[in-house]
Amino acid sequence: MSTTTIERWDIFEIELRGPASGNPFVGVSLSAEFTHKHRTVEADGFYDGDGVYRIRFMPDTLGEWRYITRSDASELNGHSGRFECVEPSRYNHGPVSVHDTYHFAYADGTPYYSIGTTCYAWTHQGDVLEAQTLATLRDAPFNKLRMCVFPKHYTFNTNEPEHYPFERKANGQWDFTRFNPAFFRHFELCVGQLRDLGIEADLILFHPYDRWGFAKMDRESDERYLRYVVARLAAYRNVWWSMANEYDLMLHDKPMAAWDRFFQVVQECDPYQHLRSIHNWVTLDGFSWTNFYDHAKPWVTHCSVQNAHLELVRVWREQYRKPVVVDECCYEGNIPNGWGNITAQEMVRRFWDGVVRCGYVGHGETYLHPDDVLWWSKGGTLHGQSAPRLAFLRRILEESSTRGLEPIGEITNTHLPSAGRRGRYYLTYFGWRQPSQVTFYLPNDERHHADVIDTWEMTVSPIEGTFRGEFTVTLPTKPYMAIRLQRV
Amino acid sequence: MSTTTIERWDIFEIELRGPASGNPFVGVSLSAEFTHKHRTVEADGFYDGDGVYRIRFMPDTLGEWRYITRSDASELNGHSGRFECVEPSRYNHGPVSVHDTYHFAYADGTPYYSIGTTCYAWTHQGDVLEAQTLATLRDAPFNKLRMCVFPKHYTFNTNEPEHYPFERKANGQWDFTRFNPAFFRHFELCVGQLRDLGIEADLILFHPYDRWGFAKMDRESDERYLRYVVARLAAYRNVWWSMANEYDLMLHDKPMAAWDRFFQVVQECDPYQHLRSIHNWVTLDGFSWTNFYDHAKPWVTHCSVQNAHLELVRVWREQYRKPVVVDECCYEGNIPNGWGNITAQEMVRRFWDGVVRCGYVGHGETYLHPDDVLWWSKGGTLHGQSAPRLAFLRRILEESSTRGLEPIGEITNTHLPSAGRRGRYYLTYFGWRQPSQVTFYLPNDERHHADVIDTWEMTVSPIEGTFRGEFTVTLPTKPYMAIRLQRV
Repeated sequence: MSTTTIERWDIFEIELRGPASGNPFVGVSLSAEFTHKHRTVEADGFYDGDGVYRIRFMPDTLGEWRYITRSDASELNGHSGRFECVEPSRYNHGPVSVHDTYHFAYADGTPYYSIGTTCYAWTHQGDVLEAQTLATLRDAPFNKLRMCVFPKHYTFNTNEPEHYPFERKANGQWDFTRFNPAFFRHFELCVGQLRDLGIEADLILFHPYDRWGFAKMDRESDERYLRYVVARLAAYRNVWWSMANEYDLMLHDKPMAAWDRFFQVVQECDPYQHLRSIHNWVTLDGFSWTNFYDHAKPWVTHCSVQNAHLELVRVWREQYRKPVVVDECCYEGNIPNGWGNITAQEMVRRFWDGVVRCGYVGHGETYLHPDDVLWWSKGGTLHGQSAPRLAFLRRILEESSTRGLEPIGEITNTHLPSAGRRGRYYLTYFGWRQPSQVTFYLPNDERHHADVIDTWEMTVSPIEGTFRGEFTVTLPTKPYMAIRLQRV
Repeated sequence: MSTTTIERWDIFEIELRGPASGNPFVGVSLSAEFTHKHRTVEADGFYDGDGVYRIRFMPDTLGEWRYITRSDASELNGHSGRFECVEPSRYNHGPVSVHDTYHFAYADGTPYYSIGTTCYAWTHQGDVLEAQTLATLRDAPFNKLRMCVFPKHYTFNTNEPEHYPFERKANGQWDFTRFNPAFFRHFELCVGQLRDLGIEADLILFHPYDRWGFAKMDRESDERYLRYVVARLAAYRNVWWSMANEYDLMLHDKPMAAWDRFFQVVQECDPYQHLRSIHNWVTLDGFSWTNFYDHAKPWVTHCSVQNAHLELVRVWREQYRKPVVVDECCYEGNIPNGWGNITAQEMVRRFWDGVVRCGYVGHGETYLHPDDVLWWSKGGTLHGQSAPRLAFLRRILEESSTRGLEPIGEITNTHLPSAGRRGRYYLTYFGWRQPSQVTFYLPNDERHHADVIDTWEMTVSPIEGTFRGEFTVTLPTKPYMAIRLQRV
């Protein structure tokens, strides 16, 4: 019986030895019931190879937890124990979930303002490059990272991964019934490293960019894979589930009902109900979003969008009544591909534009590299100019104490969208507009400090005095400016 | 009997003296039949005050024309004569009309690549400012100018006009049955001055920005006004008819059927069938265009659009099968109003974006001025940085010999729109995208010269050699670049 102490939202792991013969990945059931007072939470276990079985659990409540294992293998059944769940350490805020309909917060109540980036295949690049990626992330502004479980085959992505998720049969074909524990141990290591950097791991469970056959497994193998991934990874507090990147490129093999089912499987298996989304392809430059998966479906926690038109965030908010995360709005870079060559200025403009439309935006970087090490896929180092500006934006958001910006009606004579919290905080962003004067119309009983923000130069210039009612703020005639008002 | 010679597409005018009593504006009918060989064209005359009547005619065919006047006033009836229509002078290309479905050309076959600007109320500002406006236009790139017939009341527009279009009654109310010839003589002078600068006068017949009552006349007065304007101005070869600016702001007073009728009146009275359009309001920043007048109606010659999304040009081309002129896509400037404060870079980007989507775009400038002299309305001088770049764009188009850019399928690995004429000329524009390499896929039997164009710096850099089939062009990693291919 264990007497370990585990901090809240950290991982408690039970390791057991059991049958190693046959195929333990499919032939052996294993779970445990974790009980705190009168509440019981069931978590699935998994086979980790070499006769070792594990059950992982993320306790969400302080105090004593007891457990007992359940298995159809007698060696694994009926193991019981207890542990003490203790206060989390300073940087452990728990998992992120939806807060206030359109926003996110950590489980301890800390607001989470998502500033995401994308390194789809960074976990498949070997230790040297992976260490470099982590070093870059340590100094970068990103608190979410989109990454694929499966390796990736695509432009600039032709190398073989270090590990494969499945074992091979004697004939060289993949055996989708036998997972490769080394692959998953490495993957979990990476997820844990992100957690320790304060970065949410937005795990992409399926994607179409594949030459190995992982994108075209049969439905039974798909589900087995999902259950295995959830059993191994759900206890990591920084996990988000993304059913797919560009799911609509896979509809031929996985029709809509399959995606519905995948959501349901994950929802059923994940004891912690981590965030769940699915990411579209076709609308990047379009004005319609008919190829969106229906984010209104109840198992979708938030919209994960690919689209370059951040003005539409407000439309999607109204349509789906969930947080809107525009994970891909094109990447800063200089590759030929239309999705990967916007300027840093435009990347930052889109972030601000999405933020004042009360959504969240994702970054990526695609500068040509002699060894095809593009950040958006392999990680490595950042070469562009947007990241420091996104750090600045994140600081602005975190200092806002708004718990998420909400749409504010027209409060200026520019008719541009303002966002914030009525009565307390207003942020107005001008993008490629350069008004030299902006007049605000606010109630006379709200008195505000006003700051002129240069979002590109990353400066905040307080304006002397305080302001209420109708007042005019003078701006330089230049793009990428914002005005912040904060109640005195 | 006149024996004058008149150059083709210039104005032949008959001046007659007739009844001055009563109300000659409504009490006297007058027209003339102009006959060239077996063809007869009828043109309406108009009363010009002080007992003077005029009939204006723009001959479109070389050779002898004969005429005879028709009137219910005996002094005006039955006057006949002749004139010789001779070759036009160098800069007289005739009126512009639709060419090749989506484009424009002058009557002599010269292609017309519209680079418009906007000075809504410039004719109502007095001689000094009007002379300055004309001096500015002389050195500016614009070959079309949107301008209102009626004076304008709006932000930055509070001055009274020099002249009013109607006379007043004894009680001080406007007499909509009596036009003010001085107003129209001055207005015609301005239209002629634009003509002499090679600028099409896109005449806005109604607009909502009014404090005098001209926007809310009864239907009979509206029609009388239209017939009078057409009788006076149709013989000016550089006239285009725009039924309204922002017609959808006037629907309460002038329902859709009224606009249909206005088009029909103008179509019926104008012997030369000058271009006819109508301009919307509500969609400037929106993605729907439900408030467009239905440009598919047969009396509409081209789409006159207000919208900031130039990507939609291709959609409107397909929907309406007519030339698309985005007359307002926001103006370069620094005023608070959202439609008037984009950067010069963004103004130029929108022009190029519209052009490679195979439409035409309009300019305007709205920099704050101590005396409220903003180019977009009053004229004066230009203060911004876009105009020289639009001159550069116009030169590029005029050098293209394409007679109008047409959509080309995807011919590069960027998936960005290319435009031109297949087999002869390709223009690809990258906007805020900055690919460092672009690969083209063209037939092996087309050999091209290639130029790298910096649309902001206004440079054309030829690449050494010639190119065919699949080839790659290297670009600097910076925005606002284009590549031009021209068949050897």
